[in-house]
Amino acid sequence: MERLNKWLSEIGELDEKAMQEAKRRQDQLTKPRGSLGRLEELACRIAGITGRANPDVNRKRIVLFAADHGVTLEGVSAYPREVTAQMVKNFLHGGAAINAIARSFGVEVEVVDIGVDAEFPDTPGLVKRKVSRGTSSITKGPAMTIEQVVSAITAGVERAEVAVQYGVKLLGTGDMGIGNTTPSSALYAALLDREPVEVTGRGTGVDDQGLARKIKVVEQALQVNREKLTDPLSTLAALGGFEIGGLCGLIIGAAMNRMPVVIDGFISSAAALVAIRMKPVIQRYCIFGHLSQEQGHKLLFRELGERPLLDLDLRLGEGTGAALAMGIIQAAMEAHNGMTTFESAGVSNKED
Amino acid sequence: MERLNKWLSEIGELDEKAMQEAKRRQDQLTKPRGSLGRLEELACRIAGITGRANPDVNRKRIVLFAADHGVTLEGVSAYPREVTAQMVKNFLHGGAAINAIARSFGVEVEVVDIGVDAEFPDTPGLVKRKVSRGTSSITKGPAMTIEQVVSAITAGVERAEVAVQYGVKLLGTGDMGIGNTTPSSALYAALLDREPVEVTGRGTGVDDQGLARKIKVVEQALQVNREKLTDPLSTLAALGGFEIGGLCGLIIGAAMNRMPVVIDGFISSAAALVAIRMKPVIQRYCIFGHLSQEQGHKLLFRELGERPLLDLDLRLGEGTGAALAMGIIQAAMEAHNGMTTFESAGVSNKED
Repeated sequence: MERLNKWLSEIGELDEKAMQEAKRRQDQLTKPRGSLGRLEELACRIAGITGRANPDVNRKRIVLFAADHGVTLEGVSAYPREVTAQMVKNFLHGGAAINAIARSFGVEVEVVDIGVDAEFPDTPGLVKRKVSRGTSSITKGPAMTIEQVVSAITAGVERAEVAVQYGVKLLGTGDMGIGNTTPSSALYAALLDREPVEVTGRGTGVDDQGLARKIKVVEQALQVNREKLTDPLSTLAALGGFEIGGLCGLIIGAAMNRMPVVIDGFISSAAALVAIRMKPVIQRYCIFGHLSQEQGHKLLFRELGERPLLDLDLRLGEGTGAALAMGIIQAAMEAHNGMTTFESAGVSNKED
Repeated sequence: MERLNKWLSEIGELDEKAMQEAKRRQDQLTKPRGSLGRLEELACRIAGITGRANPDVNRKRIVLFAADHGVTLEGVSAYPREVTAQMVKNFLHGGAAINAIARSFGVEVEVVDIGVDAEFPDTPGLVKRKVSRGTSSITKGPAMTIEQVVSAITAGVERAEVAVQYGVKLLGTGDMGIGNTTPSSALYAALLDREPVEVTGRGTGVDDQGLARKIKVVEQALQVNREKLTDPLSTLAALGGFEIGGLCGLIIGAAMNRMPVVIDGFISSAAALVAIRMKPVIQRYCIFGHLSQEQGHKLLFRELGERPLLDLDLRLGEGTGAALAMGIIQAAMEAHNGMTTFESAGVSNKED
């Protein structure tokens, strides 16, 4: 707790001077002012985050946290619980969607077992930070103890620090955890003050009956844990999961290190929301990658006043939306750093 | 004319069998069915276009047509006419936005002088297919003769054929031509049956007075050329430009060769609209890259029932939106071809 407060206290405002300098550069590049739209905004924001007018994002990494959930016993997912562990192996063999999409943009993928209900042999690319083999069910009480959630957050901060040491310039979030749209929906309901029915969707594809069951489970979780929902940390402990805690830590760690972090979909946004509620300026370090098909995601964007970069009807997680957004961000920085100015190219400007 | 009709007659329907095969593959990959949203649709559509269940788009090329416009004499642009030629040099030196963004995704850029009001020395990367040094003003009569517009289209078809010979698997459109939002707006008005005020925007950034002037120019062009607006080809000749003709030919050439073509913004979409009006199935070969800030673009999408891939507030042209979309398409195909199936990865499927 003390360490967490210290970490949060280290997160500062964006660097206005670097942002202004980046804006001045954008206005001299050989294009009508503002004509690259959101690419220009991205370049200026990343300048503000990093404190450098010409930042690069050449080395990019998705950190994918995997964990299991006690709530899967309630039948909230279309897939059996063991798929979490099976998919971890798939990630390590490079056969999942995130591997393919990350390859396409030169993005590294780091997989962290932060609470999968299985034991893995030592494998290159797998970071073992298991807090426990799955959370307790949110319908019976808190998913995690405060100690457990702080362990998960600490692992996330550590993974951001390690990325910084390895020269990563752009972080992205990824998740794997069968059942994890349910705790995420509970977090949305609690932190956005919404009814469960508004923020609970079909996840990987439950039918109408499954959806009704999920909504009931979220209602029950909020009821059972109502006395715990007093602050962001204990709300996360009560309703979240280990991977959501890890992601929350990764986002905090990115902001502490003045590194932009691309937020994937519904699950990752729940983690970002917790971090933002702990310290609002963290929002400025987050680049929301895409709008998920999962109902409730757009309510979060409305609340935060954000507009995600992409809208491609994704509902997979794993960091797939973040990796796709990283391609756009890479291009934005390539334009920012690689274009010539009107003067050096000998192109007449508007004012001529 | 005869050649054009022959080309159009060579364009067939998409290959339903390849699309179904691609869909079956998508349903076996280690992800919930449909969870990659538009990436799955892209993979299936490109299978249908190419007639191959596992197509690749590894080699990608933007063909950027540059030309000048007689209408620039009416003060419709924020930039002077000589900027077209200056920007061509900038493209060849690699300093423009399209160069930076294309580099970021491994996309080649071919620049075609199809009607710039300047003479260029022989330069690597520049293809010289000048029809004339700029069109006639659309306010005085047709921009081009039928012979001229057929020459422009022919050059576009040729550039598609050359790309096929060089192993390009995904084409994209790009344009440069000071003043070219004005003829494009005129084409939108004529082909979508809209009022000039609905489809005329600020282009590279004219002020209120400039916008009013542009709208008047479009009204005048429609009035002066009203007897020419009888079919897509003579409408293009009357209201278009050499680069729009070249792009129209490129799109036709792509469809003839069963190659997907990514349509950039407002100008490129005008060319696509002409091609689609010549032969409606061409629409199935077009992947609309992004929604431009230019007013009128969304009316085209409403008319065609299309939803562009990206919405990033761009209003630059050059193929920048197409290049960004190519990144998404590349990732879609990487997922389609590179992911493992449930069976081979040993992951339990939903039905288990």
